Amino acid sequence: MTAKLENDTFLRACMRQATEYTPVWLMRQAGRYLPEYCATRAKAGSFMGLATNVDFATEVTLQPLERYKLDAAILFSDILTVPDAMGLGLTFTQGEGPKFAKVIRDEASVNELHAPDLSKLRYVFDAVKSIRNALQGRVPLIGFSGSPWTLACYMVEGAGSDDYRHVKTLMYSRPDLMHKILSVNADAVAQYLNAQVHAGAQALMIFDSWGGVLADGAFQEFSLAYTARVLSQIERRYDGADIPVIVFTKGGGLWLKQMAELDCDVLGLDWTMNLGVAKELVGGRAGEPGKALQGNIDPNVLFSPPAQIVREVHRVLDSFGAPHVDKTLKGPTHIFNLGHGISQYTPPEHVSTLIDTVHAYSKVLRA
Amino acid sequence: MTAKLENDTFLRACMRQATEYTPVWLMRQAGRYLPEYCATRAKAGSFMGLATNVDFATEVTLQPLERYKLDAAILFSDILTVPDAMGLGLTFTQGEGPKFAKVIRDEASVNELHAPDLSKLRYVFDAVKSIRNALQGRVPLIGFSGSPWTLACYMVEGAGSDDYRHVKTLMYSRPDLMHKILSVNADAVAQYLNAQVHAGAQALMIFDSWGGVLADGAFQEFSLAYTARVLSQIERRYDGADIPVIVFTKGGGLWLKQMAELDCDVLGLDWTMNLGVAKELVGGRAGEPGKALQGNIDPNVLFSPPAQIVREVHRVLDSFGAPHVDKTLKGPTHIFNLGHGISQYTPPEHVSTLIDTVHAYSKVLRA
Repeated sequence: MTAKLENDTFLRACMRQATEYTPVWLMRQAGRYLPEYCATRAKAGSFMGLATNVDFATEVTLQPLERYKLDAAILFSDILTVPDAMGLGLTFTQGEGPKFAKVIRDEASVNELHAPDLSKLRYVFDAVKSIRNALQGRVPLIGFSGSPWTLACYMVEGAGSDDYRHVKTLMYSRPDLMHKILSVNADAVAQYLNAQVHAGAQALMIFDSWGGVLADGAFQEFSLAYTARVLSQIERRYDGADIPVIVFTKGGGLWLKQMAELDCDVLGLDWTMNLGVAKELVGGRAGEPGKALQGNIDPNVLFSPPAQIVREVHRVLDSFGAPHVDKTLKGPTHIFNLGHGISQYTPPEHVSTLIDTVHAYSKVLRA
Repeated sequence: MTAKLENDTFLRACMRQATEYTPVWLMRQAGRYLPEYCATRAKAGSFMGLATNVDFATEVTLQPLERYKLDAAILFSDILTVPDAMGLGLTFTQGEGPKFAKVIRDEASVNELHAPDLSKLRYVFDAVKSIRNALQGRVPLIGFSGSPWTLACYMVEGAGSDDYRHVKTLMYSRPDLMHKILSVNADAVAQYLNAQVHAGAQALMIFDSWGGVLADGAFQEFSLAYTARVLSQIERRYDGADIPVIVFTKGGGLWLKQMAELDCDVLGLDWTMNLGVAKELVGGRAGEPGKALQGNIDPNVLFSPPAQIVREVHRVLDSFGAPHVDKTLKGPTHIFNLGHGISQYTPPEHVSTLIDTVHAYSKVLRA
């Protein structure tokens, strides 16, 4: 028996329903910029130690909600849990990010790939269930995964990259193998996201963190098509509620109109895209179909003094303009977020300034 | 007395004049993928040893022309010579790229900055003169610099960065100081480029390599405005010839229409932008004003087998479509290039496939 949701502003904005203010959450809001997160992580010993322990994962997911008036919680986990469950061996090295023990670069290793047994991801579903219970209906819980292409980048490169040489070499030389990897990834991601919903996730987000490194043409063929394949398999209603889905392609602004054809509810944007332009292109007018928009302040704004943060938050809210206020219609809506994950060097008190300014000024914009 | 130009295809395409085929050159075409370059660099001892020695710089600039039917040569140098001449102490560490001994992060260091005495950059002008002579009119010589914003990124960060935290912190916290840095940079870059023209450069390129990391709004204020300030000070005719100017903002596709208002001749594009869309937006019809376009194949294509390289080169040429062929009019033109510098791991024989395919297929497209 789950508690009734006290604050459904985020979910309503996802479904393009009018809200009293602009909801806000932050990518990577449970992270190293919070001393309490660092304390829990120290107890857990490692990033994966933290993510695979239900109590720790629950604790860190709720930490930012204690400090800030956030309108959503997001499962504490990583975008790369699926390939880890495929047997690639995910670890996080200090300061260097994710690393896989095994890489996929030849026909033999591609042919061995298959969607993982979901039992290997049980720690994630247990965490979702535990977090949902711990939230007691305060705000909705977002589940997530990396996109098929973004997973493939790490599976082929074995780690982050600055030129994507290995994954693009495979893609250009053996597109057949790349399509096989992406098909396996898409089906696995869809099963994984559905299982998160069954465990209690109330919205889903697909992080196409590396879609923006692709050439025009390659993006549509190797990233967008497989995000669409995930979406075609996701259950969109569960337990009597709509499950909105957010798709975020970092650096994908040029393909926004094509992304608007995806069967998702919300498009995430990074800071290079003007929100007003995006609203015009894909936001839809009141009473007409369209996508809700999420984003998109530069996380580096949080390093400036509070007065400047206020100014930049105003600028982002102003760029979207007044959201629609007619409760009888769906129309253009905005969910405030960063354009990328929050930096570990962010002063935690600056985040309060951002959150409070979003709430206060977005009410003024509706008045 | 300089030799008459044998191949002016590149210059004519820059000026939107009809050409018999699509000219091609490659960013970083004199680079580590060529064994003969590595041999010269070994003799020079270091990157700056190579760049500051007129004979070595001349030798490596001409090396790719011996192998490939390139339509332009580009001065062998670095985008960061101007801040080096300001006294910041540029070095290149093996595998890690450029590094400055001194960084600019506070008011005192900003106030000390001023445009360098051009005599400190004499090694560049001497190299331009020497290369121009050595070319004996085979193809035109391109001079270049980093953009004011791109120089500022390195001057504040002290090196490459993956989050641009320091430079964006300064920009958001103390925009007044950032504007001072950019003003000094713009005036210095303009003087530097004019001196390259006086030494023999026949075209100029401004590399705004990091413009694309800026938020919408910040790009216009801190990058585009200062590129415009450089352009306003550049001499566009010298020794009876037009000096075309190329502006390349990596990741700048979203701002293409705003970039089209720059007083330059050519806009460079990376691989995320569709050339046909770009032509429609800013290329101009025959008989009407517009910008020539340069780019934009993903350098990672060069890691695939020759048959795939041919396919991808066709795809890029097809995306631009047929260039105009009426010699009495200016109209949309394309200069083939990569969307970024060539990788050091590129097989040199694959570059021949690319160059020869551009020439052959672009003639077919005009037939």
